[in-house]
Amino acid sequence: MASKAIVLICDGMPDRRCSRLGGLTPLQAANPKSFGWVASKGECGLMDPISPGVPPGSDTAHLAILGYDPYKHYTGRGAFEALGAGIELGPNDVAFRCNFATASEDGTIVDRRAGRIPDEEAEVLSRSLDGIRLNRNSDVTVLFKHTVEHRGVLVLRCDGLSRLVSDVDPHKVGVRLLPSRPLVDSPAAKKTADALNEFVEVSRRVLMDHEINRRRALRGQPLANVVLPRGAGTLPKLEKVPDRFGVRAAAVAGGAVYKGLFKAAGFEVLDVKGATGTVDTDLEAKMRAAISAVSAYDIVFVHVKATDVVSHDKNPAKKVEVISRIDSAFSAVLSEVDLEDACIAVTSDHTTPSEVGEHTGDPVPLAVYSPGARYGTVERFDEISCALGTLGRIRGVEFMPTIMNCLGRVPMYGE
Amino acid sequence: MASKAIVLICDGMPDRRCSRLGGLTPLQAANPKSFGWVASKGECGLMDPISPGVPPGSDTAHLAILGYDPYKHYTGRGAFEALGAGIELGPNDVAFRCNFATASEDGTIVDRRAGRIPDEEAEVLSRSLDGIRLNRNSDVTVLFKHTVEHRGVLVLRCDGLSRLVSDVDPHKVGVRLLPSRPLVDSPAAKKTADALNEFVEVSRRVLMDHEINRRRALRGQPLANVVLPRGAGTLPKLEKVPDRFGVRAAAVAGGAVYKGLFKAAGFEVLDVKGATGTVDTDLEAKMRAAISAVSAYDIVFVHVKATDVVSHDKNPAKKVEVISRIDSAFSAVLSEVDLEDACIAVTSDHTTPSEVGEHTGDPVPLAVYSPGARYGTVERFDEISCALGTLGRIRGVEFMPTIMNCLGRVPMYGE
Repeated sequence: MASKAIVLICDGMPDRRCSRLGGLTPLQAANPKSFGWVASKGECGLMDPISPGVPPGSDTAHLAILGYDPYKHYTGRGAFEALGAGIELGPNDVAFRCNFATASEDGTIVDRRAGRIPDEEAEVLSRSLDGIRLNRNSDVTVLFKHTVEHRGVLVLRCDGLSRLVSDVDPHKVGVRLLPSRPLVDSPAAKKTADALNEFVEVSRRVLMDHEINRRRALRGQPLANVVLPRGAGTLPKLEKVPDRFGVRAAAVAGGAVYKGLFKAAGFEVLDVKGATGTVDTDLEAKMRAAISAVSAYDIVFVHVKATDVVSHDKNPAKKVEVISRIDSAFSAVLSEVDLEDACIAVTSDHTTPSEVGEHTGDPVPLAVYSPGARYGTVERFDEISCALGTLGRIRGVEFMPTIMNCLGRVPMYGE
Repeated sequence: MASKAIVLICDGMPDRRCSRLGGLTPLQAANPKSFGWVASKGECGLMDPISPGVPPGSDTAHLAILGYDPYKHYTGRGAFEALGAGIELGPNDVAFRCNFATASEDGTIVDRRAGRIPDEEAEVLSRSLDGIRLNRNSDVTVLFKHTVEHRGVLVLRCDGLSRLVSDVDPHKVGVRLLPSRPLVDSPAAKKTADALNEFVEVSRRVLMDHEINRRRALRGQPLANVVLPRGAGTLPKLEKVPDRFGVRAAAVAGGAVYKGLFKAAGFEVLDVKGATGTVDTDLEAKMRAAISAVSAYDIVFVHVKATDVVSHDKNPAKKVEVISRIDSAFSAVLSEVDLEDACIAVTSDHTTPSEVGEHTGDPVPLAVYSPGARYGTVERFDEISCALGTLGRIRGVEFMPTIMNCLGRVPMYGE
């Protein structure tokens, strides 16, 4: 029985057959050797992160993979973004993820990313919004923090708020930003929508006059003159993974939402220099961090976002290259971890077909090596090979018990 | 369409790849020919008795396999033990399984099996405890019955008792027996814990003075001077299998808990001489009983415990031998039952890896022959071969409908 586990989640890695790859999936075209070892010595199968055919969000997929039924536990994405950005959330806080965007005078969205405003400028703008006062809703405290590129998180803090409000972000250009509306008929939802609309109003005035935007105007760059909140969320009450299974759990991840998800599940999120959550992430550094964490933790998750980024960019050739780079970095795990004492799993949170550019509801391949694994005849790690493995087809919410069973950490039910 | 079914449950038979068997599972090493016939002419798959990764107890696994969702219907193990021992349980009875054990004067457990006290002595001791009077809880009737070796069952009978009390058995040696505590804040749980503690107190005095123990002391054998109750249970209200499916159902089993589970599900438990529930059981007699029962019953279950016993003993080589012996005895079923009219299934209640020695949450292989079965290319009955069969991966609670469907006994849902 293994006592340690390393789980690699390659975000959006699974795909469909791509005409631009001669009818292969990017995984088939890359034929990753380290993942292939896990597949050939481990048990393989398919996993529906949510359920067959349902495209998962990043948040619901990870909730499920971490052992929580998202239909019971999901309370919006915002809270995970805020947690991941380092904001300690209280039970009454409502959090939103936000874009800095460019709007014309009448509020029509011109650029949802404000010309991909750089980190340094977005950071300064974010500080100018953190703590701003609302007049109509003076009892609501405003927290604002920059995360990455044009993105940030907003937290409204006050008793009696609700996450059941609509997005301000219209999710496309050429239309006006939307006033947030309460999604239920409750005083809390009404108050939250009103406070959110007031924040958007007040923040537009702050941004309009900001030095950063004056400089951007002089350089002819799109102004970051509006904030677009979306994905209202509150912190769900989750039984932590360490409490449920009696393990010490750590995670390596770049993106704020993933860090927040792991934190919400009770994982220690390790600080890894160069883990950016994008294509330029330092894969070797992430794997080294995971390998050294195995001495102090029982289970270590490594989340890699790059596969999803290139899929949304509809670039199958680049996806093949990214998969090969991850695989190559991952070989260090196989050579440096004691495989007589470790469970090693490779999988993903959802399929993002790189000729579609969006999450789809196809199942994801899964390979789980552990000493004594009932491996079958699978030789490669890809969507088609793994489908013929000894694990059959499981649900995302069954993933954690499957791994913990390899560590003897699932309590017996009954006698 | 078959009209009869024989189901063989080999307890704890599934395993993992064993280093002591050259990387094979015991089933792979034994390559059982009769089971192999069922696999090659039947539909094969994997079954999660409870759900993926969750190690089942003997009781919850059988409840599921008999068609009852254990999360809805499980009310503790004790009641099945008592039923299996032949005690007719009322709806207000709380039953416990018990060990005769050896304790030092201060209550520290020295031997949880009282030197594996033989059946004859445990039987006499049990009779001395049956019907003993409690003083503080004089309205509680005490029933006590010996089952096998050092084991027995205790029933507390009174209105207003509860199964929600903790075990007296500390489940290890070197520590004191535990006072039972109510697990919920209710008068019923308080009264039950109090009556149970009083029973332990009173029974210690009876056992201390018993002739059997005086003789054991003279022979230098560990005294059976304490009873360790555990697994409080009440009888669940189950829709009987004969009522649900309109069949006559019989079972052949050795161990008390299995007999009790089958009885609770409405099966006739056949009396088979030599069916001991251990490794020395008379396998041929059990198979003969099943074969002749097919004329009077529509479905006959045969439960064999030996595979689990050798797995808990961490003896993979012996497990190979036991599997071969069961397989050989089972060949009589294939040669004597009319296979044009019978469904034959082979499976297990849970995995007990013989290099681990405990139940784990790995799925179990399953093969179901019936006339017209959609068999595929599986040639052998083992964990890996069956995983690639035409049944895919099902849940324990889906097993009974799967078998009954082969008999045309599942009512149509809808029109």
